Amino acid sequence: MTRTVYLNGEYLPETEARVSIFDRGFVMADGVYEVTSVLQGKLLDFAGHLARLGRSLGELQMGNPLSAEEWLTIHRKLVELNGIHEGMIYLQVTRGNPGDRDFAYPPEDTPQTVVLFTQSKPGLADNPQARAGMRVVSVEDLRWGRRDIKTVQLLYPSMAKMEAKRRGVDDAWLVEDGFVTEGTSNNTYIVKDGRIITRQLSQDILHGITRASLLRYAAEAQMQIEERPFTIAEAQAADEAFFTSASAFVMPVVEVDGVALGSGRPGPVATRLRELYLEESLKTAI
Amino acid sequence: MTRTVYLNGEYLPETEARVSIFDRGFVMADGVYEVTSVLQGKLLDFAGHLARLGRSLGELQMGNPLSAEEWLTIHRKLVELNGIHEGMIYLQVTRGNPGDRDFAYPPEDTPQTVVLFTQSKPGLADNPQARAGMRVVSVEDLRWGRRDIKTVQLLYPSMAKMEAKRRGVDDAWLVEDGFVTEGTSNNTYIVKDGRIITRQLSQDILHGITRASLLRYAAEAQMQIEERPFTIAEAQAADEAFFTSASAFVMPVVEVDGVALGSGRPGPVATRLRELYLEESLKTAI
Repeated sequence: MTRTVYLNGEYLPETEARVSIFDRGFVMADGVYEVTSVLQGKLLDFAGHLARLGRSLGELQMGNPLSAEEWLTIHRKLVELNGIHEGMIYLQVTRGNPGDRDFAYPPEDTPQTVVLFTQSKPGLADNPQARAGMRVVSVEDLRWGRRDIKTVQLLYPSMAKMEAKRRGVDDAWLVEDGFVTEGTSNNTYIVKDGRIITRQLSQDILHGITRASLLRYAAEAQMQIEERPFTIAEAQAADEAFFTSASAFVMPVVEVDGVALGSGRPGPVATRLRELYLEESLKTAI
Repeated sequence: MTRTVYLNGEYLPETEARVSIFDRGFVMADGVYEVTSVLQGKLLDFAGHLARLGRSLGELQMGNPLSAEEWLTIHRKLVELNGIHEGMIYLQVTRGNPGDRDFAYPPEDTPQTVVLFTQSKPGLADNPQARAGMRVVSVEDLRWGRRDIKTVQLLYPSMAKMEAKRRGVDDAWLVEDGFVTEGTSNNTYIVKDGRIITRQLSQDILHGITRASLLRYAAEAQMQIEERPFTIAEAQAADEAFFTSASAFVMPVVEVDGVALGSGRPGPVATRLRELYLEESLKTAI
């Protein structure tokens, strides 16, 4: 089935959605994005994703081209037009097409480029990988210094995922100055003696929307949370590990750099947190 | 005048040259580029740019979609079609359009995206800025760790240029761990007691084609060259400074973070090197 996508005010067949070769997103990686998950045809953590979009745009001195209501309308229309029951909606905003290439930002009245498309993922919630758990390897974190801005500069995360694949595992955890920053496209956690340990927010990591919601739910459930960096050795000695992202929700990790964690199977805390996230986020899904 | 550009085998009006929203260059910054200058209608340092393109592609495990002869033919045809006497030719290769967004690389038989376009710049050689010299400010270098690969991840250089503009000067020099890495889109040099000092090649800086040629010409002219990092304080105490890039050739720098260098005007070494580069590179222009 040909998807219908959104591009600058129009709903188009995906094969017809094209941007100029001068688009700042294409020649300068000058764009930001968000991915919102859909479960039961509803948008998860939508307000959080919109808030972060606004923050990313602001950090890059870009305006927000649409109102919250307009964003919601487009998201819902794409869900409907593409019959998405479980899946994701991707949105990207770039600084637009100045008609030529220049390092300087184009004039402020240059229309931004706005793209949204859906990805249907039946089985997103009832994911067999969440029952098996994932295996990860550590890779040096070579990304730029403003990982709190969700830009399309995804080449290194992509390279790190391919390195993980080459080494026969599912994903990579990025390490800088001896500490895990995050995964290739997710926030990382370990569990030790019942405590959930995850790196504190800074410019070094993405401010995960799923992370924020999950930590709130975990706190409400009286679970203990410690926000600080941890090492790979500490992860290998942990009882459990997991990561969070908008599309993976809470994903157990059962092996780090060849060392099985605990029982080598998804642990009770990660399993409970996945259930908790799915339950709670569905309550506020719109 | 509407330029004629090249896109995936076709010569098109610039307004019709578009790529898919799923292009890896647009959603992942998964692409590399080169800029070759044109003087007297001829390509400068063309062999060097093609060699670096091959290296960038190889580092990212991408093939080179065209032969050296094909690249040359396209460059020359664009020069001719657009009547370029002085200016630049930009080329970009991305990992292509897999038809959807995924961090994993697409299958190897996915056609790469190849884009080339011209920029006419009359007065490129006889540039008044080269007679006045440029003023720069230092900005922290927050780019990724593989600056030796010439990728389209240019958001931070773009941000740094805008920061320089905001501070009322021409460009920014990027500083990491106390030492200048390079400029926003150029290699940097200082001159002290007749010695040319420039940072040595590593993954921290772009392996400038203009840099390589200039250092060869300077060595042939018996000038002394020292390849090592330098600080902003050292630059401020230098007799002269300059930067090199494919489109600026050799550009004198007369002020660093508000401190005028030497006489506050382009120095004799930078001026001589600019002449030398223009003379010598035109000899091998094709």
